[in-house]
Amino acid sequence: MRDNLRINGDRLCRRLQELAQVGRIAGDGVCRLALSDEDREGRNLVVGWMRDLGLAVKIDAIGNVVGIRAGLEVGPPVMTGSHIDTVRTGGRYDGTLGVLAGLEVIATLNDAEITTKRPLAVAFFTNEEGSRFQPDMFGSLVYTGQLSLAEALATKGIDGATAGDELARIGYAGPEPVGRPRAHTYVELHIEQGPVLEAEGFRIGAVEGVQGISWSEFTLTGQSNHAGTTPMRMRKDAGYVAAEITVCARKIAQALDGYQVATVGALTLSPNLVNVVPNHVVMTVDLRNTDEDRLQDAERRLFDFAQRAAATEGVGLTRRPLARFAPVGFAPHLVGRVEAIARDFGLPVKRLPSGAGHDAQIMAAVCPACMIFVPSVGGISHNVEEYTAPADLGAGADVLLRLLLELAE
Amino acid sequence: MRDNLRINGDRLCRRLQELAQVGRIAGDGVCRLALSDEDREGRNLVVGWMRDLGLAVKIDAIGNVVGIRAGLEVGPPVMTGSHIDTVRTGGRYDGTLGVLAGLEVIATLNDAEITTKRPLAVAFFTNEEGSRFQPDMFGSLVYTGQLSLAEALATKGIDGATAGDELARIGYAGPEPVGRPRAHTYVELHIEQGPVLEAEGFRIGAVEGVQGISWSEFTLTGQSNHAGTTPMRMRKDAGYVAAEITVCARKIAQALDGYQVATVGALTLSPNLVNVVPNHVVMTVDLRNTDEDRLQDAERRLFDFAQRAAATEGVGLTRRPLARFAPVGFAPHLVGRVEAIARDFGLPVKRLPSGAGHDAQIMAAVCPACMIFVPSVGGISHNVEEYTAPADLGAGADVLLRLLLELAE
Repeated sequence: MRDNLRINGDRLCRRLQELAQVGRIAGDGVCRLALSDEDREGRNLVVGWMRDLGLAVKIDAIGNVVGIRAGLEVGPPVMTGSHIDTVRTGGRYDGTLGVLAGLEVIATLNDAEITTKRPLAVAFFTNEEGSRFQPDMFGSLVYTGQLSLAEALATKGIDGATAGDELARIGYAGPEPVGRPRAHTYVELHIEQGPVLEAEGFRIGAVEGVQGISWSEFTLTGQSNHAGTTPMRMRKDAGYVAAEITVCARKIAQALDGYQVATVGALTLSPNLVNVVPNHVVMTVDLRNTDEDRLQDAERRLFDFAQRAAATEGVGLTRRPLARFAPVGFAPHLVGRVEAIARDFGLPVKRLPSGAGHDAQIMAAVCPACMIFVPSVGGISHNVEEYTAPADLGAGADVLLRLLLELAE
Repeated sequence: MRDNLRINGDRLCRRLQELAQVGRIAGDGVCRLALSDEDREGRNLVVGWMRDLGLAVKIDAIGNVVGIRAGLEVGPPVMTGSHIDTVRTGGRYDGTLGVLAGLEVIATLNDAEITTKRPLAVAFFTNEEGSRFQPDMFGSLVYTGQLSLAEALATKGIDGATAGDELARIGYAGPEPVGRPRAHTYVELHIEQGPVLEAEGFRIGAVEGVQGISWSEFTLTGQSNHAGTTPMRMRKDAGYVAAEITVCARKIAQALDGYQVATVGALTLSPNLVNVVPNHVVMTVDLRNTDEDRLQDAERRLFDFAQRAAATEGVGLTRRPLARFAPVGFAPHLVGRVEAIARDFGLPVKRLPSGAGHDAQIMAAVCPACMIFVPSVGGISHNVEEYTAPADLGAGADVLLRLLLELAE
């Protein structure tokens, strides 16, 4: 009977719609920045649903909320969840799907009057997006002991507010010690936020891990000269070296096997005039790979090339590391189960990495963890046009239901 | 005796110093925008010197000023000159050297009581720089019939003022018909405004011509995507295509013989974020060559490459021509005489093109014309730090003196 159990897709979509009204912005988007008034209102709505579903709601000192459904046995719950804060011009599915699909699983089990052996829990973590307070994912970082509570509470937001003050103001500085309850396993359903599943005709992604990230800022200092009177051999063109680095980044991504990506997303040229050789460039390079050795290889190749190219042109080069995270691999047996369950359901499934960061990668430090992806139409996310078809939302929640049931037995 | 005649370098430098006080700005620079109060004051000073030297001063309807020294015969004068307007943060030598060296030649001839066969003339043309009114060099353009007087007078400046109104306001809307007096030949002494003469140890440049200029603006339209979740093969990265075009421009300049230069001076990326694939780039390409066929070849190669690169990436490309001037060659016999005279004086001399525009290239349309360059320290110009050593100023003026004497016989 448990194998035939399915979630109620309409009910899931209704909750998604209702939460999307909180902080709604033009174009059917959402703005619920962490610890804002809108975040409070969204939290109150979800906590209300948790209580309606009979969950015991625990709120910790950094505002992480965990709703627990008792099992036949006492012990660490099998946990699912995500986040309900959004970027400034966010969509309706990023984060909220994982939380509300968790509630839909609980509702389905309640309806079927099933009690699992292990407890189940649905969590939402504070400030996953990092749009208002840095670093992103600080709720799960504190929960897992990777960031101190004091440091997180002292964080200043982009508007000058302090995270601790804002947390108290919205009434979500809870009494639970951080890191409780410990999780038995953690499973997170999320939209892909990338184009791969849709483009290749898959409906479920079995996420193998999260790419490691290396962000660098290069500053190039050359010499501004007249574009007409300065022979090519006498130039120290910072813009030219920046272009060479940009082309090299692409070549490295193509040369390295697997999931290496490389992006020059920001680049500012000075003096930025048609007839003056640029003397100054600040540019960023974003390198990501699921494999730490390969990521280090990409970094080494790029930095070596940049130094050689700058030296050849007589341009000064400095590198400032902006961010560096090692790749996180999810528990192989869980990834395998996501894949197998999707196949059982007749859902085309692909193993793939996550290119974006998620609370699941933080949770992976303290318990076996995995993620389930569903397609993002056009790969669009962090955008009011973010969209996933209802059938895919439901399919993802069904896989989540089955996996949570297995893990809770 | 005429072969031993030399200008008075101290007197030349004193006049340069005195004119540099008009519109003086911090750092010993000068701001005398065309038809401003400072321009009027500078004009009054130079016109006063012309009259003191016995020149007949003619002012035409666009404010060009020509001071004429009678010869033994009546006819078109051998003309020298340049301009006395400056860019906003200009130096002391750009333009003014050519005008004041012309006056120094007159003073030297007056002292030596030499009357030439042909008349001599020293001119300064209105709005060479184009910093306040576009197009640049409109005084000489009107003088040579390449721009209508009405159009020039109607030009709106960057401050909203009209050229004709400003010309009348400062009292330099003169009675002479434009294009009079016709010139027999035109010789312009100017600072190089580039680094070549100094870097290679030359003291005189025999300018063979002025580079043709091709300015284009490219707009690249791709798709903004998440830098982590979008595989390389699915990207439409406008920034990457811009980098490829920048690298290609350098390769073309290196591949074409002679004086081809290529510069990507301005480039703006959107949305310009570290973790977003750029979807929009506006960039400029400045191509210059002394040879029109080669310049067209460079244009063709670059535009072809840009279209192929954009198509391969799936990025849209549009090109907007910003400016296009054909190269101008100076009269070969005059270039040869500059070279020969410099050698006679024991001055190391190099034939080279001008990378910047000058009134001489406009005058070349109506009479044989040439230019003499002297070194710019560090190639710096359009900058308060513009500098040429007094010995080089004097050497240039001596070459000018000898050439004018030859031409006026």
